[in-house]
Amino acid sequence: MSPAAVRAGNLICEWMEDAGLRTWVHCLGHVHGRVEGTNASDEDIVVDAGIFDGSLGIISMVIAFSDEEGVRFQSTFIGSAAIAGILPVSALQITDKSAVTIQDALKKNSIEEQLRYDPKSVWGYIEIHIEQGPVLEWVGFPLGVVKGIAGQTRLKVTMRGSQGHAGTVSMMRHDPMAAAAEAIVLLESLCKHPQDFLSFDGQCKSYSLESLSTSLVCTVGEISTWPSASNVIPGQVTFTVDLRAIDDMGREAVVCELSNRLYQICDRRSASCTIDHKHDANAVICDSELTSKLKSAAYLGLKRMTGSVQDEVPVLMSGAGHDTMALSHLTKVGMLFVRCRGGISHFPEEHVLDDMMFGHLVWQSWHS
Amino acid sequence: MSPAAVRAGNLICEWMEDAGLRTWVHCLGHVHGRVEGTNASDEDIVVDAGIFDGSLGIISMVIAFSDEEGVRFQSTFIGSAAIAGILPVSALQITDKSAVTIQDALKKNSIEEQLRYDPKSVWGYIEIHIEQGPVLEWVGFPLGVVKGIAGQTRLKVTMRGSQGHAGTVSMMRHDPMAAAAEAIVLLESLCKHPQDFLSFDGQCKSYSLESLSTSLVCTVGEISTWPSASNVIPGQVTFTVDLRAIDDMGREAVVCELSNRLYQICDRRSASCTIDHKHDANAVICDSELTSKLKSAAYLGLKRMTGSVQDEVPVLMSGAGHDTMALSHLTKVGMLFVRCRGGISHFPEEHVLDDMMFGHLVWQSWHS
Repeated sequence: MSPAAVRAGNLICEWMEDAGLRTWVHCLGHVHGRVEGTNASDEDIVVDAGIFDGSLGIISMVIAFSDEEGVRFQSTFIGSAAIAGILPVSALQITDKSAVTIQDALKKNSIEEQLRYDPKSVWGYIEIHIEQGPVLEWVGFPLGVVKGIAGQTRLKVTMRGSQGHAGTVSMMRHDPMAAAAEAIVLLESLCKHPQDFLSFDGQCKSYSLESLSTSLVCTVGEISTWPSASNVIPGQVTFTVDLRAIDDMGREAVVCELSNRLYQICDRRSASCTIDHKHDANAVICDSELTSKLKSAAYLGLKRMTGSVQDEVPVLMSGAGHDTMALSHLTKVGMLFVRCRGGISHFPEEHVLDDMMFGHLVWQSWHS
Repeated sequence: MSPAAVRAGNLICEWMEDAGLRTWVHCLGHVHGRVEGTNASDEDIVVDAGIFDGSLGIISMVIAFSDEEGVRFQSTFIGSAAIAGILPVSALQITDKSAVTIQDALKKNSIEEQLRYDPKSVWGYIEIHIEQGPVLEWVGFPLGVVKGIAGQTRLKVTMRGSQGHAGTVSMMRHDPMAAAAEAIVLLESLCKHPQDFLSFDGQCKSYSLESLSTSLVCTVGEISTWPSASNVIPGQVTFTVDLRAIDDMGREAVVCELSNRLYQICDRRSASCTIDHKHDANAVICDSELTSKLKSAAYLGLKRMTGSVQDEVPVLMSGAGHDTMALSHLTKVGMLFVRCRGGISHFPEEHVLDDMMFGHLVWQSWHS
């Protein structure tokens, strides 16, 4: 919803119109392009089309969702959540770093609020996204099918201690920077070796630990001190925590254990600790029928393009979050990954376009 | 040398002129006020005077030094070092956060470069500064005498790893934020318990360890990540280290041990580490004759003001650095502390004035 995002949206509109689609812009800034047709040959007009078999539907609606990553407002899937009807009214009051609310940003762009889609009108949702990981490059496949997306929690942790002069206060200080460093070291250990920290009950123990040990990741991407001078003991340190896992119970156990230990660290140092939950999303398992059809479609599409395909189309889990997570509240979902060079993609320069990834809604009225 | 500092300098000039001093501004932005007199009664005209006995000198020069703290350029005592003749020409190329050099900043303010003072013309230097610590408030004394100032080292540490997506890169990542957190935890342990980390040779072992355990302090006041997004593993983390101790050999041993361990931490994590020395200053022991005279003068001054003084004037070590450190290269030095409320003073709001603390140069020609 920044000026750059609005310009990118206009550009995508132009591309869609050049391709013969009818376009409009949703209240939350994502761009729609709809192709209406009466037979299967129309499918090839759609952006990214050509890899679906006919059974998937002959009418697609292409949507470029706004702010999947939550870069500006720290809350992800704002656009797709609104369409899926799971964006609470309170979300409009979420602020960016300059204390501008989502509602203010929308007003500035003269985009009026609209309502969620009717679940009955939609048959399914398919999203195409770069993998943002190394697997497809390793196995030498241009496409992969996603069977599920990790759940995620984003926290903003603020630790407060006693600000002071670096030279005159003894080491018996209440230094929130030292507390934050201890917390970040603990966080890394916890996510590398969850079995050393967590106690599960008998029922979910083995499953949770196994899935946690293969999928749990945590990241501190932002940190700042206040007042931020080299010769001043900070009065306050703020940092972000991004935690993801396929297993929701396991992730929740990790967040709970982490929070308790952060409070303990600060208590011991006579500092205080505030933990804000900026975002929580459960893991999503893609629809098995859709996944199976996407796998066949990808295989056939690749065969048509290259002549022959040696192996099965890879099936992957996604560590990155996607708009599919929000749309799973509206309809059945499926997802395709496109191979990307270097595995990890190009932050933050290509962010605006990367953030507006393309989703395909398949309409019930045309699918039956 | 910011616009605010220039305005503060002009204000101090006005105060000095109101008090009858002849004023001028040094090339590095500090303000001079000189009182020339022929008998001991003149001393009372000088700012902060009235507490020295006549033997200390009858002519004082008051200097408000520029950028004692090194807030803008991270290098301290720029003004006083120039006067003492220990500012290397290379220092003029030191840059601030916006890549403006000291030389550029001076040109912008139309202040031309001048040369150091002649040591033969100066008899001694006395500095008056707020304590920035809690001792005088605790013991109920408005003044204290400083017997020495801790040496200090300021480092800028940059750790570089592999930037990546928070959700798609496993915990076998090369995360410079985790490396920095481990380094800061290590730094705190090292400065709290140097005896657990350092091995001294037989000669200096006991002295260094004793003085380190009572005076060693370390602070990480600034830290930042790049590119600084909550869902991106940082490619780079930069933080400052401020290390102070009364014992120079001990401090050097700590810096050496710290540097080795930082390189080890980064090696183990396949990250890289660069350590820039932004500032190094040895401890300064004040002149014993001057310290003794200041103590008597403070006692007599307090007695004159309050009628009676119960205890001896406190003698303190200074953990904070002062322009006295640079002036000790030019002449003998002494220092008085003034009690301040709350022990720790008021950063960064009062910084500009606090940074321009007042020093008294006593001229040889008038003292003999």
